[in-house]
This record gives sequence, structure tokens and C-alpha cells, in this order.
Amino acid sequence: MTEDFTESEKNGFYKAIYSRRDVRSHFVSKAIEDEKLSKILNAAHHAPSVGFSQPWNFILIKNSETKKKIKESFEKEKDRSSQLVEEPKKSKYLSFKLEGILESPVNLCVTYDPSKFGPFVIGRSSIPEAGLYSVCCAIQNLWLAARTEGIGLGWVSILSNDTLKDVLELPEHVVPVAYLCLGYVDEFAEKPDLETAGWLPRLELKDVVYFEKWNEQKNSDWDNISKLIKENLDYA
Amino acid sequence: MTEDFTESEKNGFYKAIYSRRDVRSHFVSKAIEDEKLSKILNAAHHAPSVGFSQPWNFILIKNSETKKKIKESFEKEKDRSSQLVEEPKKSKYLSFKLEGILESPVNLCVTYDPSKFGPFVIGRSSIPEAGLYSVCCAIQNLWLAARTEGIGLGWVSILSNDTLKDVLELPEHVVPVAYLCLGYVDEFAEKPDLETAGWLPRLELKDVVYFEKWNEQKNSDWDNISKLIKENLDYA
Repeated sequence: MTEDFTESEKNGFYKAIYSRRDVRSHFVSKAIEDEKLSKILNAAHHAPSVGFSQPWNFILIKNSETKKKIKESFEKEKDRSSQLVEEPKKSKYLSFKLEGILESPVNLCVTYDPSKFGPFVIGRSSIPEAGLYSVCCAIQNLWLAARTEGIGLGWVSILSNDTLKDVLELPEHVVPVAYLCLGYVDEFAEKPDLETAGWLPRLELKDVVYFEKWNEQKNSDWDNISKLIKENLDYA
Repeated sequence: MTEDFTESEKNGFYKAIYSRRDVRSHFVSKAIEDEKLSKILNAAHHAPSVGFSQPWNFILIKNSETKKKIKESFEKEKDRSSQLVEEPKKSKYLSFKLEGILESPVNLCVTYDPSKFGPFVIGRSSIPEAGLYSVCCAIQNLWLAARTEGIGLGWVSILSNDTLKDVLELPEHVVPVAYLCLGYVDEFAEKPDLETAGWLPRLELKDVVYFEKWNEQKNSDWDNISKLIKENLDYA
């Protein structure tokens, strides 16, 4: 388990990191093979979790009635949220395609169950949110594994969690964390859709890294890496 | 961007997924090369984020006074949380090594700044927690990239976020999401430490996958994948 990664293995890993996209527009109807889907789920299940609590569940959905109800919730929430933004951004926002609920062959709700292996979970007493954070790590494993298998994934967060809980019959204590759309795609875009559309720019790495404390962008103990980061190398 | 992954690229990706560990005991003092550290940070920065808000910051720490303060907070919180668990589990819990704050050459605090590109962020009006979830995706990218580069990482969630905010001078609105220890290791364990110690077992994949709604473990539309998952193939 300690041997180094070969160059080709590293390349495979970074290819997944840099070519992963949030997919909304490019789904095709081709079904996902069961073996691929189980590989992707298994990668998610091998995420880290606080106190090894593995507090996630994965609800696979293809029932079209369920999808329609979720899509309705999306429409309602998109309309509601558009009231929060002024023109000309509002029209731009409304023109974006932001989900692929009906077109994608598989929808997947990922949930957090705080009662699993509880109530005492190592590492969750001081920071209770740590359980939720574990579920997000599983989602990112899932997303990257999907990309590796050639499957696109889009995370829909414009919807009502109350509707989700109701439609999927989640118990009161279970939290829906993500509603995901999965399927083959006709392409993975070069860049995030919102970057291409000029909605927001990608920040430079130097803008998100601080040294020793908040907002410290210069520190003599970190001169060399600070220079490397400023060169903003494209490692992709 | 749409070409398939080769077998060797896939293997590299899955090797990262299955050999990643939460490291506490195996740090060695060898410094992390600046180029490796910036590659790891760049992988984190290329995580998905709600509305492309990139709401993360990464605070690199090697100052020993800072580390000592965080270690003190850990000791205090570990002691406090041990009161929540009964013997014989309590003694077992207290015997675990749960952090490598002082031994690891680099500590890293990952934070969430909800004000970035705000207040209107696409996809965050209905589910405000989506911003925090993005930061967790970045942490998982970082964790996997570290593994690929042969660097161990341990997430310390037994500490006080108030202390963290104070020591790192975080503004009131910024949320500390993770405190991470990074460094070379003498080994990556075969299994998670808490599994090896018999604290908790790894769940089987079939125990975390439902079909169409909560708790539904059998559904005729999902028979084939249900069988595959029950075989609990070890894809690692």
C-alpha cells in the first residue's frame, strides 16, 4: 500500500480531477451498465468518514413519476430564486440549463443518517457537522469515479429538501445532501458552463491560499511555494 | 475531453480511492516539496462548487506556536468527549492516536467563505448548506491528490472551532471546515485504523444502497444491480 504511483497512474488520477464537470446539457439516453454503476457506488462507499461512521445512503431512482415531482420542485425553486437577482443577470440566470433530471437515465439521492453507529461517534462531539462533511466526501468520490467511467454527473441544488424528503419517504432525522443526475454524455465540456457563459471567472490559486493565518498572502516562511502558486501553473 | 480513460488511467484513479487513509500515526519528518504541495492545492481548487462560487480558502500552517495551541484544543476536546462514552469503550477510545498535529510538517485549515461572489449564488438559495458541501468536495480532492503524491493526510475534528477561529484570526462570517495534517508517512495502512482496532466494521455496499425510496432494498426494476451489489465485489 505504500509504493509510489507510476506516472501513468498519477495521470489517470489528475485526468479525473481536471476533466470532471457538472453536467446539465449533454446527457444521452444510453443506459448505464449495472457493473459500472456499482463500481461508482463502491468508490463512494470507500470515502473517509468521521469515526468510520459511514453515515451515507444512496437511493437510486429511475421511476419517471418520482423524477417528474423533483423536476417540478426544481422549476418552482428556480422561479422563486430568480426573484432574488436583478436584471440583466436575472435573464441570463433564467436562460441557463441547470439540471438534467428527466434526460439522465439515473437519478441518485445521497443522504446523511446521523443515527448510524451513534449516538457517540468518534470526532463528532466537538464538530457535529463532521458527519455531513463525510457524506460530501463520498459524493466527490462518486463524481470522480463516474467521470473515470465516462459517466456525466450533475448536482441539482435548486429544489426543496422538504419535497425530496416527502417524495423519497425519508425519516425525519435523515438529511438529503445531494440530488444527482447520472448518465452518458455526448461531451464533457472543456470548462465549467458558468465560466464559459461569463457568469463568474475561475479564481487564481494564489487568491485562495493564505499562510499561517487568514488573509496573509505573504510570509517569509512560505516564499518558495508562494512564488510557485503565483505562476499559476496549469497542472492539468 | 471526452475520450475514454485507459485501463492504466482507471487503475491509477481507483488506487487513490482505495488506498487513501486517514493518517494519524505514520508521519515522518521529511518536508513536503513545494511543487507537490502546490499540485495538491491546485487539485483541491478544481473541485466542483455551487454556482462556481469557489468558496474555499486554504491556510497553510507550520508555525509551531500555532500547532501547539491547536494540539491543546484537541487534548481538551478529547478529554471532554471521552465523558460521553461508557467503559469499556471509553478506555479503548482514550488509547487511540487520533491526530498528528505536531509530527506532521504541514497543517492546513480549509475554510468556507459564504460572502464570496455573494449574496446571490446560483444553486444556494434553496439549500444554503450547498456552499459548505462544495468546500468538502475540495477537501476530498485534496485528500486523494495527497495520496497520489505519496503524502498522508489526517483530518482532526476533535477540536474547538472557536479556538481555531481565534488562533487563525478568521472573520466572524468565515467557517473553519477542516483542520488537516499532511506529511510523508512510513506506511499507508491496509485498512482504516478504527476497522483494524475492531471499533466498527466496514458496512457492506448492499447495506447503504436503496432503490427508488428510503429503505427499499428490493425492487424489480433494479434486480440485476442488486445482485451485483450483494456479491459485494472487491473492486479495489
